[in-house]
Amino acid sequence: MSTFGVTLKKVVDDSYEIETGFGLQEKLVADLQDGLMGSLRKVAVITDSTVKDLYAEKIAALLNDKGFSAQIFVFDAGEKSKTRQTKEMIEDAMLAGGYRRDCFVVAVGGGVVTDLAGFIAGTFGRGVPFINYATTLLAAADASVGGKTAVDTPLATNLIGIFHQPKKVYLDIATWKTLPERELASGMAETIKHACMADRDFFSFLKENIEKVMHIDREICEHVAETNCKIKYHVVEQDEKESGLREILNLGHTVGRAVETVSGYRLLHGEALAIGMAAQVRLSNKLGYMTQKEAEEVIELYRKAGLPVEIPSYINREELVKKLYTDKKVRNGKLRFVLQKGIGDIVEFEDGVFAAPIEESMAREIIMAL
Amino acid sequence: MSTFGVTLKKVVDDSYEIETGFGLQEKLVADLQDGLMGSLRKVAVITDSTVKDLYAEKIAALLNDKGFSAQIFVFDAGEKSKTRQTKEMIEDAMLAGGYRRDCFVVAVGGGVVTDLAGFIAGTFGRGVPFINYATTLLAAADASVGGKTAVDTPLATNLIGIFHQPKKVYLDIATWKTLPERELASGMAETIKHACMADRDFFSFLKENIEKVMHIDREICEHVAETNCKIKYHVVEQDEKESGLREILNLGHTVGRAVETVSGYRLLHGEALAIGMAAQVRLSNKLGYMTQKEAEEVIELYRKAGLPVEIPSYINREELVKKLYTDKKVRNGKLRFVLQKGIGDIVEFEDGVFAAPIEESMAREIIMAL
Repeated sequence: MSTFGVTLKKVVDDSYEIETGFGLQEKLVADLQDGLMGSLRKVAVITDSTVKDLYAEKIAALLNDKGFSAQIFVFDAGEKSKTRQTKEMIEDAMLAGGYRRDCFVVAVGGGVVTDLAGFIAGTFGRGVPFINYATTLLAAADASVGGKTAVDTPLATNLIGIFHQPKKVYLDIATWKTLPERELASGMAETIKHACMADRDFFSFLKENIEKVMHIDREICEHVAETNCKIKYHVVEQDEKESGLREILNLGHTVGRAVETVSGYRLLHGEALAIGMAAQVRLSNKLGYMTQKEAEEVIELYRKAGLPVEIPSYINREELVKKLYTDKKVRNGKLRFVLQKGIGDIVEFEDGVFAAPIEESMAREIIMAL
Repeated sequence: MSTFGVTLKKVVDDSYEIETGFGLQEKLVADLQDGLMGSLRKVAVITDSTVKDLYAEKIAALLNDKGFSAQIFVFDAGEKSKTRQTKEMIEDAMLAGGYRRDCFVVAVGGGVVTDLAGFIAGTFGRGVPFINYATTLLAAADASVGGKTAVDTPLATNLIGIFHQPKKVYLDIATWKTLPERELASGMAETIKHACMADRDFFSFLKENIEKVMHIDREICEHVAETNCKIKYHVVEQDEKESGLREILNLGHTVGRAVETVSGYRLLHGEALAIGMAAQVRLSNKLGYMTQKEAEEVIELYRKAGLPVEIPSYINREELVKKLYTDKKVRNGKLRFVLQKGIGDIVEFEDGVFAAPIEESMAREIIMAL
């Protein structure tokens, strides 16, 4: 018997920039001409059937004009497409199109596109670089910081994926104008969650300006997009691998993800999260971490953003309780929740522990009443 | 327009140990009891239909005896199983079995098992830790250092995957005794390649001891397994992301991988590599980098190990030439080969450049004559 040590210690620098603005297609292409991706010229523009005509084709055309070789890879819009099958279909199309390791990916779209395209980039040729060009408020809030990529499976959302950091992120607020109202509202769900979790002043700002956000007021929206990123970044930079602190980003997601799955994706992610946040503030109030007034204030802001705060009647609540156990925070078979402390803070149960075991009976009680 | 910087710079330590010995099942379990995987208790033992009865069941039983919760996930033995579909099947079985992020993977088997199980571990819950328990000479030579995991697709081998380092590797030489002769020979292909590439003395050692290796002489085999790892490690530690130097590990693989695919996997990986190495030494000789005597010496050692050094008659050579273009080293549509310099060294074409463009006509000539 003998032992041989493999030493693999190194400094990794995955730093990148997030650029916020109105209409950033030309800026993206200029950055690439300036060498953002080194000498790589072959580009896979990955997008969905909605965003393709709106923005992706323009980006691909600009790239091809400037000496890049860009091809668009498109899949049907919607969370239902965030699967291993779609990943495989795009990989096969890229391989058939002669794509090998000397390429990069530009994801143009919302959270589904950035999650899926980032995962594709991360496993194509064992990892090629990628750029996120986010066209929704949800992607601005959720997909721009953290490097999380994933697909859903029949049994759980976001459980198959990797951490893969983009080389740059563009948040094009002009694109929010083409979002259906329901999508825009859905995007607000993560934004409000961030405020609830970390920033009482931002929560007040959102309360005051919710209508301006919904009408895409440029200045207000830039502030919203940036504050979002900053709050999330502050959490993520302290805990890149989601061991402790980063769990607070799961605020509202325990019930949220479950209700999203049980609805068969009739609910958008943000709509499901709004319901999950309503459940969470009720639970936090019940356990004495926030007042009933504060809980109502949070629920009211979600309502004002045009989001559901009750479980739809078509949802089987017993099935929903069962589905809670597919949550990734479950440990030793026990449900675990992240809880709010007032508005703008999170309960820290022990040093570095932000998710507490909750009895099923208590979770059931909240769900039955919602 | 405004820009916000995300700083993600950190020190990553992926160091691990490779343990070589005869019968290491108890050692593996003892290491786990000693905390190799921290407090994790849920184990997915991933293996194939051949290795399951031989070794995996014993490991799972030992683990369950010692307070771990181990379940075996099995797929049909053979390179044909190294697909996204098998990955998906095992992921679904793990999810259905209640596996979440708080688990780890033990891969028990040869290179197909370690490649596939490492990839599964790397994307399950965005990455859970894994151990390789290698039961073949090929896995000892090829899968123990480098952190490369992957699956094949209809259009290319090993192009979908990630870099994911194991927490520990066990090379159990006792398991080589149950290898079919053809598999053992196949494993020698990478070993001989390593000698050709980096170590003239090791090449001489193999020439002298090839029969003892084939009869699993314990001392000889331990030396072979260890020298293999050390050669590969020396390359990999200098170049973890395969940007330059690491390409030399692709020696013989340009034709090797193509012939493997075109054979429809009738050829084992090592058999295909032996053919690829025969093509490579002919090419290196033709270009003046090695003498004809040296080329013959290499071919003769492959032959003595019981490996094919000619293209089988059922292979369509024109199809094979076409297939060369799916090689991941192809750049700007040009074939690129790594070439030997004598025995024990590699041609460095320019500073840090170890793969040279080769005209299709020259590659075709070699292939037509082989």
